[in-house]
Amino acid sequence: MNISEIGKFAFLDRLNAGFEVGQQSTVKAFDDAAVIAVSDKPKQVCSVILLEGIHFNLVYTPLKHLGYKAVTHAVSKIVAMNALPQQILVSASVSSRFDVSDVESFYEGIRCACSGYSVDLVENNLTASMTGMTISVTAVGEASDDSLCYKNEAKVNDLVCISGSLGAAYMGLQVLERERRIFESNHTQPKLDGYDYILQKQLRPQARLDMLKTFEDNGIKPSSMTNIADGLASDILHICKQSGVGVRIYLEKIPIAAETFEVCGEMNFDAVTAALNGGDDFELLFTVPISEYEAIKSLSGFEIIGYIADESQGAYLVTPEGNELKIKAQGWTFVTG
Amino acid sequence: MNISEIGKFAFLDRLNAGFEVGQQSTVKAFDDAAVIAVSDKPKQVCSVILLEGIHFNLVYTPLKHLGYKAVTHAVSKIVAMNALPQQILVSASVSSRFDVSDVESFYEGIRCACSGYSVDLVENNLTASMTGMTISVTAVGEASDDSLCYKNEAKVNDLVCISGSLGAAYMGLQVLERERRIFESNHTQPKLDGYDYILQKQLRPQARLDMLKTFEDNGIKPSSMTNIADGLASDILHICKQSGVGVRIYLEKIPIAAETFEVCGEMNFDAVTAALNGGDDFELLFTVPISEYEAIKSLSGFEIIGYIADESQGAYLVTPEGNELKIKAQGWTFVTG
Repeated sequence: MNISEIGKFAFLDRLNAGFEVGQQSTVKAFDDAAVIAVSDKPKQVCSVILLEGIHFNLVYTPLKHLGYKAVTHAVSKIVAMNALPQQILVSASVSSRFDVSDVESFYEGIRCACSGYSVDLVENNLTASMTGMTISVTAVGEASDDSLCYKNEAKVNDLVCISGSLGAAYMGLQVLERERRIFESNHTQPKLDGYDYILQKQLRPQARLDMLKTFEDNGIKPSSMTNIADGLASDILHICKQSGVGVRIYLEKIPIAAETFEVCGEMNFDAVTAALNGGDDFELLFTVPISEYEAIKSLSGFEIIGYIADESQGAYLVTPEGNELKIKAQGWTFVTG
Repeated sequence: MNISEIGKFAFLDRLNAGFEVGQQSTVKAFDDAAVIAVSDKPKQVCSVILLEGIHFNLVYTPLKHLGYKAVTHAVSKIVAMNALPQQILVSASVSSRFDVSDVESFYEGIRCACSGYSVDLVENNLTASMTGMTISVTAVGEASDDSLCYKNEAKVNDLVCISGSLGAAYMGLQVLERERRIFESNHTQPKLDGYDYILQKQLRPQARLDMLKTFEDNGIKPSSMTNIADGLASDILHICKQSGVGVRIYLEKIPIAAETFEVCGEMNFDAVTAALNGGDDFELLFTVPISEYEAIKSLSGFEIIGYIADESQGAYLVTPEGNELKIKAQGWTFVTG
């Protein structure tokens, strides 16, 4: 069914009816603006924009997964402040290729994410698009003043840590792209069996809310934190630049999953490059004072991969042989179409 | 100069350096998320997305004006809650047609708006686009609990009021479109002299922050409020639907500027249709209890155009002859490209 048969506002009402308000701080949803209640804790707000052809390809991205992933993008940035996400605002624009059930699939993914992350959808907007699909998600979070983690407070000798593994989302994308090319050249059905882990990381990544609990339960306050959106190289360089520090990352400490190594072998791709420059992992990259080493060394869920150095020492990757390679943010360049 | 010569992050740093933080409530800008301070007042958050080809045409929209107007869009929704806008977050995606100076012009407009509306830019993101330009603006505001105005609290017998005049932005668009067509067919230079008012309303509309002061100074609390984004017809129907009421709008009371009437005559266009169905006016549409009539009747800056009726009486426009015409939201349909 075409959206215009229902009408924009009636369709929005129908979509919105599928969302329940669960957060106490949500005072009002779906008005000109959302209203968020008073508390004794500061609020965090972030916003992401995702464009078809740049950030996602609908040929191999199920709309439900796309909805989920769009929320993950925004929620992950709130988590990277060591804050609890509570509300999201969504704007989507779709072209005439989309019918009612397509848009409903997309919102089903958003609903799964709202439920999984315990966030309320408080504003929703749908517009027409002349070209590709566009998604904008704003997330609002809450944290106590003293738990917030910024990018500019890493200190010399702090340990550099990473949750989960890197490069999997990027290799998932490579497999999807390979199968798309094969399909387009000879209509062979995509072979995606056996790639579950990396495809899951690419198509349905999780924001690491669980790490907030790890930090809280163990009394850990990262000195700085961000999420891996552009790749480890870019993101550690942001911390270094904003904190005015250098860094040493031990190459063999970078967590890469066995499945990711396997696919890298199969596709003749360097796994460390995937980990350094592949984005979309949504893992947390954070620094912890070295005085906390005893407290964190036995904890699971993250790895210590290096340490913060003086700014004059620069940002380098240390190989097992002891060689130092300059870290460059090659993961993402401003390629314009 | 091409953006990739500077690099995305360096260019963002340069753009961001042009913005100063002025709001006390802005704790942290340009991290993973913005941090907004504790206060005893609830926060409002809204988000708008603007797409080239749907919401604006770069052929006749100067980028500086576009930046200003994008902020107006978001800020106006906060104002429509009877709240004070304080922060904005911007995401823009641009194609390779845009060079550094183009993007700087766009941000110059955003800076003018930040300055004019006293809001802080607290997050800024720039991405590549394969097709048209995309702009997303999120605005955050603050209001005391008892001053917030929703769309669902209009009561029977309330007076319906509108700030400023309607239809001018729409007629400005018609003039720009006419001149574009003439230019494209025979390269005649656009004739835009003498259309200052309507072009200003289309290209550089103002959010009505001044009305917040009018309300406060005169102790007026609208029972419901929204801003004219889709046209008077659509927007009054939103209030009626959400409040469960009907309405009577007196046709001859709808404020239409002399300049708008003049252009309507010239272009053989019905001025009331422009006022009812033209969007982008960003005027405030609000209802006030009839008990406040004595307090508001002598105030300037807005007009009383009708009254709220019982839901069973429906939503009608009353002509000077006393005929009743059903109000339909014809201003905007979900046309997909």
